[in-house]
Amino acid sequence: MSFQNPVFIPGPTNIPESLRKACDMPTIDHRSPLFGQILHPAREGVRKVLKSESAEIFIFPSTGTGGWETALTNTLSAGDKILAARNGMFSHRWIDMCQRHNLDVQVVETPWGEGLPADRYEEILTADTNHEIKAVLATHNETATGVKSDIAAVRRALDAAGHPALLFVDGVSSIASMDFRMDEWGVDVAVTGSQKGFMLTAGLAIVGFSAKAMAATETAKLPRTFFDVHDMAKGYAANAYPYTPAVGLLNGLNEACTMLLNEGLENVFARHTRIAEGVRAAVGAWGLELCAANPSVYSDTVSAIKTPEGFNATDIVTHAAEKYGVAFGVGLGEVAGKVFRIGHLGSLTDVMALSGIATAEMCMVDLGLDIKLGSGVAAAQDYYRGNTATAQKDAA
Amino acid sequence: MSFQNPVFIPGPTNIPESLRKACDMPTIDHRSPLFGQILHPAREGVRKVLKSESAEIFIFPSTGTGGWETALTNTLSAGDKILAARNGMFSHRWIDMCQRHNLDVQVVETPWGEGLPADRYEEILTADTNHEIKAVLATHNETATGVKSDIAAVRRALDAAGHPALLFVDGVSSIASMDFRMDEWGVDVAVTGSQKGFMLTAGLAIVGFSAKAMAATETAKLPRTFFDVHDMAKGYAANAYPYTPAVGLLNGLNEACTMLLNEGLENVFARHTRIAEGVRAAVGAWGLELCAANPSVYSDTVSAIKTPEGFNATDIVTHAAEKYGVAFGVGLGEVAGKVFRIGHLGSLTDVMALSGIATAEMCMVDLGLDIKLGSGVAAAQDYYRGNTATAQKDAA
Amino acid sequence: MSFQNPVFIPGPTNIPESLRKACDMPTIDHRSPLFGQILHPAREGVRKVLKSESAEIFIFPSTGTGGWETALTNTLSAGDKILAARNGMFSHRWIDMCQRHNLDVQVVETPWGEGLPADRYEEILTADTNHEIKAVLATHNETATGVKSDIAAVRRALDAAGHPALLFVDGVSSIASMDFRMDEWGVDVAVTGSQKGFMLTAGLAIVGFSAKAMAATETAKLPRTFFDVHDMAKGYAANAYPYTPAVGLLNGLNEACTMLLNEGLENVFARHTRIAEGVRAAVGAWGLELCAANPSVYSDTVSAIKTPEGFNATDIVTHAAEKYGVAFGVGLGEVAGKVFRIGHLGSLTDVMALSGIATAEMCMVDLGLDIKLGSGVAAAQDYYRGNTATAQKDAA
Amino acid sequence: MSFQNPVFIPGPTNIPESLRKACDMPTIDHRSPLFGQILHPAREGVRKVLKSESAEIFIFPSTGTGGWETALTNTLSAGDKILAARNGMFSHRWIDMCQRHNLDVQVVETPWGEGLPADRYEEILTADTNHEIKAVLATHNETATGVKSDIAAVRRALDAAGHPALLFVDGVSSIASMDFRMDEWGVDVAVTGSQKGFMLTAGLAIVGFSAKAMAATETAKLPRTFFDVHDMAKGYAANAYPYTPAVGLLNGLNEACTMLLNEGLENVFARHTRIAEGVRAAVGAWGLELCAANPSVYSDTVSAIKTPEGFNATDIVTHAAEKYGVAFGVGLGEVAGKVFRIGHLGSLTDVMALSGIATAEMCMVDLGLDIKLGSGVAAAQDYYRGNTATAQKDAA
Repeated sequence: MSFQNPVFIPGPTNIPESLRKACDMPTIDHRSPLFGQILHPAREGVRKVLKSESAEIFIFPSTGTGGWETALTNTLSAGDKILAARNGMFSHRWIDMCQRHNLDVQVVETPWGEGLPADRYEEILTADTNHEIKAVLATHNETATGVKSDIAAVRRALDAAGHPALLFVDGVSSIASMDFRMDEWGVDVAVTGSQKGFMLTAGLAIVGFSAKAMAATETAKLPRTFFDVHDMAKGYAANAYPYTPAVGLLNGLNEACTMLLNEGLENVFARHTRIAEGVRAAVGAWGLELCAANPSVYSDTVSAIKTPEGFNATDIVTHAAEKYGVAFGVGLGEVAGKVFRIGHLGSLTDVMALSGIATAEMCMVDLGLDIKLGSGVAAAQDYYRGNTATAQKDAA
Repeated sequence: MSFQNPVFIPGPTNIPESLRKACDMPTIDHRSPLFGQILHPAREGVRKVLKSESAEIFIFPSTGTGGWETALTNTLSAGDKILAARNGMFSHRWIDMCQRHNLDVQVVETPWGEGLPADRYEEILTADTNHEIKAVLATHNETATGVKSDIAAVRRALDAAGHPALLFVDGVSSIASMDFRMDEWGVDVAVTGSQKGFMLTAGLAIVGFSAKAMAATETAKLPRTFFDVHDMAKGYAANAYPYTPAVGLLNGLNEACTMLLNEGLENVFARHTRIAEGVRAAVGAWGLELCAANPSVYSDTVSAIKTPEGFNATDIVTHAAEKYGVAFGVGLGEVAGKVFRIGHLGSLTDVMALSGIATAEMCMVDLGLDIKLGSGVAAAQDYYRGNTATAQKDAA
Repeated sequence: MSFQNPVFIPGPTNIPESLRKACDMPTIDHRSPLFGQILHPAREGVRKVLKSESAEIFIFPSTGTGGWETALTNTLSAGDKILAARNGMFSHRWIDMCQRHNLDVQVVETPWGEGLPADRYEEILTADTNHEIKAVLATHNETATGVKSDIAAVRRALDAAGHPALLFVDGVSSIASMDFRMDEWGVDVAVTGSQKGFMLTAGLAIVGFSAKAMAATETAKLPRTFFDVHDMAKGYAANAYPYTPAVGLLNGLNEACTMLLNEGLENVFARHTRIAEGVRAAVGAWGLELCAANPSVYSDTVSAIKTPEGFNATDIVTHAAEKYGVAFGVGLGEVAGKVFRIGHLGSLTDVMALSGIATAEMCMVDLGLDIKLGSGVAAAQDYYRGNTATAQKDAA
Repeated sequence: MSFQNPVFIPGPTNIPESLRKACDMPTIDHRSPLFGQILHPAREGVRKVLKSESAEIFIFPSTGTGGWETALTNTLSAGDKILAARNGMFSHRWIDMCQRHNLDVQVVETPWGEGLPADRYEEILTADTNHEIKAVLATHNETATGVKSDIAAVRRALDAAGHPALLFVDGVSSIASMDFRMDEWGVDVAVTGSQKGFMLTAGLAIVGFSAKAMAATETAKLPRTFFDVHDMAKGYAANAYPYTPAVGLLNGLNEACTMLLNEGLENVFARHTRIAEGVRAAVGAWGLELCAANPSVYSDTVSAIKTPEGFNATDIVTHAAEKYGVAFGVGLGEVAGKVFRIGHLGSLTDVMALSGIATAEMCMVDLGLDIKLGSGVAAAQDYYRGNTATAQKDAA
């Protein structure tokens, strides 16, 4: 098992040394004041990362999928109507979860590669004069396609329709890497995990609830215990959890927030944009295209790269792992075999990104694609040279 | 934050060095064959620890509470009847979870300090001639009271009644520390977590499903997604998870199983009995009594120790933490303030146990109890001297 | 290999979690400014721990023995006269080193168990009217016998004699644990290592040179390269070493100094005295005596405990390791078989000390000594109860 | 402090995860049998890496420089004659050490960039009919110039001259990375350190003594204590050291030997050659030349790359550190400012090497050299593509 090369999957990310150490903690009493000294700053840090003044932050020993379930089960009842667009594998899965929990989802089918259709949302919400739609789902960044959506536009759609539905946002692969504004965008439940922008291992579902979402918990009838936010809130008030918390990961989350806030969120976002631009320059130099339909939806955390017709993009991922010991992401669902993905989020430097680009290049040449060795690297080098500044130390 | 002293809470336990290191892992691709090399041996190891030939093992990024929810939601439907006894805080919570999930629980109230009433179970099951009871809950070891129950007797009750109900066992604080026989006892769902006998941090719900429990999943209608065992099984078949797994913890679990099986399960159990006997010798020397009603229900993983009338047992826990930097467990629920708990499970030596006994002794004297310094230590020393053999290296 | 119990050898000590992590560092360029950010604060921290305003601090990838050699070879020439007392194994070894390096040592044989004979030093120095003696050696704390000596008295002897000899002090097992005053005592070379009061692994020789010692380097003719302080000083001026430094250990040393200085040196010393007093109370309760002749020379870092005539004290050490997995120190040299040693320096709590005392007690009873189980523990508990304050977190 | 990028200094190398963990060890008793279980296999592993059947292996808490001193002081007396060539900074320093220890060195000045002049050695040794020369020094790999020398040829020179002088080889930057044959080449003392081919942190001097070298210790009169091999041998016989050993590093060394021997030494050497060939391909593509005079002396562990006249090569190193967070090596001594060095030894993959090449490329362009971005990367990619096989996991 070689751990020498960076990973280029779209999460979990490469873990900074200091976060590895923060997580690797001896056992403490999770019912002691000491635990509160980890828990409360971690929640406060998350709140700041979400750009919220007052969201209630809940952190479950779970994953982003558990965060989705937390959003739904704490605020809704069987039969409630939901509005959601399907434009990738992760929006698809959240819709599927709604259906399993007996929610009535109105699905707006959207081409994979495009962002959420805010205009169509507005039409539907405007037409829903009885306000039967209780919640709108929005996947901020479709990890499967490398597509980011305009959450502010979704909020404008709700407002234009004068519709009171809750707005739930899946920010699993955007939060802490790309700009996210919980309060300004009127997000009612924000969902993320520990293993993306927070640069930790998987194991935490991290959610923020607005006051409006908290109010909805009073009437929600979907069954819930493990993901119950009331039990969690009651625990927090006593420096504790309703069950045993993942103390080391929480300690890591606290440290991750400190790192991100010390670097400055805008700097973190700019760093992600910079690394992503280099990758995109390489893709252009290769003569390939992104799955993302146009620059306005390019994701700064993951690029899904389309390979020529007749070529199985998944072979690149398999070959990179076997021959070069490097992990990329495969295409999922509709785009399986059509794209491969380079994750470029979390703790990454220009230098690490170049090694991923160089590897992808070798793989494509090995597999017979008409790519010139060094071409993508040179394009990325050219970009990074002009845009590096001295930001290399920031994410240490 | 001092990490020098061992902890004596009944889980999470002290973590062996090798498990700390196994968990502290760089990021790997959790969709690669490499991940399968961690996942499958870990599941196989757990199966052996459960003493089962054929149970399906599912491991969720969650906790024992999530394991309870996995048991219920995958096998039952709203309105189903459940039989359960309440003899401590953890059996109480599982009952509460059933009720929140709209299950109809017949609760057998049982004195805290006593084991599960298998005779009463038999009466009720025999009377249930229509077999309306779909599942029987049994808490193998009540962590709150230090009481172990006779699961074989519960099985005999089911068999004597000729009743087909599923048998769900909470083995959170027994499995991997005390004898547990999934197949022999006819357990249909066994539930545990990573932070007790497996000596890891919290973060994994570990469950075993019998073939009968798997069959029940086909008709179960309680909503579930995160805890769905079918999704999990489908993922496992592809070396993967339906979402991002907690890779490091799984690697730790694999290593923990290897340690336990190398030591030999019977040796592990004997070691726990030995350490516990020393603690109980100390309690006797102090002139105090256990919450557990009689020796047949004494737990080998945790001792709940009753303090004299009028004394607040919780003060011992607070004082130990503040003055000596040592963590014990408080009493919970009905026995709050009446008992304090010494956890003695997982990775512990005689020498560590003696330091906990010595600390409890100092605390009780500090707080005015009529205890002779050194008395409990001497009793435990006397026991350990005669029973130590050369087992000290076993749990390294 | 079990790592669960604390060690009770007189160094290396138990290593605090934060120092383990500070030492476990990825590779950095040891010729970069970054290295200077570790090196210089570490040297400055050591200087403060030595209570010196202006000593030059040199840190070699070596051990205390290398520190002795640094002191001799940088300041002396073959044939130079040295005054030294032999009162234990470590003073003996330093004398032996002098002789191997062709120095002419006047040895004052002193009973093992007694401190350095300052009066005798004064007589000899006074008689040395030609000032042929170039250096006086003084072992501050004899690790072999648990005897501390009065360095201030040695300085007074030199001053009373009006003698210009250099004063070299071996503070390997005293510095950072017991009061040491380089400037006030007029120490010319202070020698220590990383693995005692600094609570790190072995691997660093740490020495402080006074201006007078630095001046002596100009004329010293003993051959030296690896331990040459001029090469080292030249390296330091360029943020570097004359060879490859042990970067992680230096990072740990820097962190250790920060911990010690944050706790406050006087608090560190008081903590060592307190832990030691508890051990001594136990020894008294057992009816045994220390090797140290009287309370004025009791060491606060290690106790050498005499066992009855005819009993092989080394058996305790062997038995403790084999049966209980606990490490004590054997007797060395003249006192081999006559004493066993309990190290109580560095990162240690009352609770840890009690576990060591309890183990020693069990061993002695196992081996047939007339010791009452719990007696030493009770004496130590009684002492710690009254003297613990809230110092438990200090050495975290 | 960013730890994200690999380092490209010629040692210390990037440390594999498993070695980090092997070194990061809790304290054990270094006088116990347990320590012997680390020490003896480590020594045995080193012996095999040296390709010796019977060399005595000594491991000091020190560095390669201490290893040089060990070689000299244990085998020679003041005034002894030594033969040595100076062809780089490290051979220069060893010569300087000889002179400080009052040895009489006949220096063969050799152009920096060329290997050791075996022919000239033969002439001098043949002329030394009285056998006054007691030892011949040979630097196997000049880290300063990236030049390897032919040790077998030096042995042939000694044999041709029928000369009994001892042969001392500095293999600090070759052993465990490039082929080294202690027995076949008749090496009497082989010297290396922990931080190069063994992939650990600095902190160990590792030396092998032939029987002939051991015999020479009987008459050698240079003063020595810390580096005395007799004291060390006596310690080893008792599972111990004459002072406190660096236990964790020894544990890491043991693990490193296991890794190297499991991979197979010839595979390790081939891997180093492969990585080096890629770097050399890049250098060629840049139109630059190595300091090493011709391919027969190209080092497989470090490349010193000449930059155009009038350009300060050190600027590349400074710029890489400041702008890209990557460490290269500067030129030393005669070649300061004329070369920069890329270290490519130890734990390194093709992918990591490509990131170093890409970085060097960006730096040279940033600083105005006429280099085409991507050119060196493409040349290296082309080489690695055809030569990678599946060796990527080997050095994990």
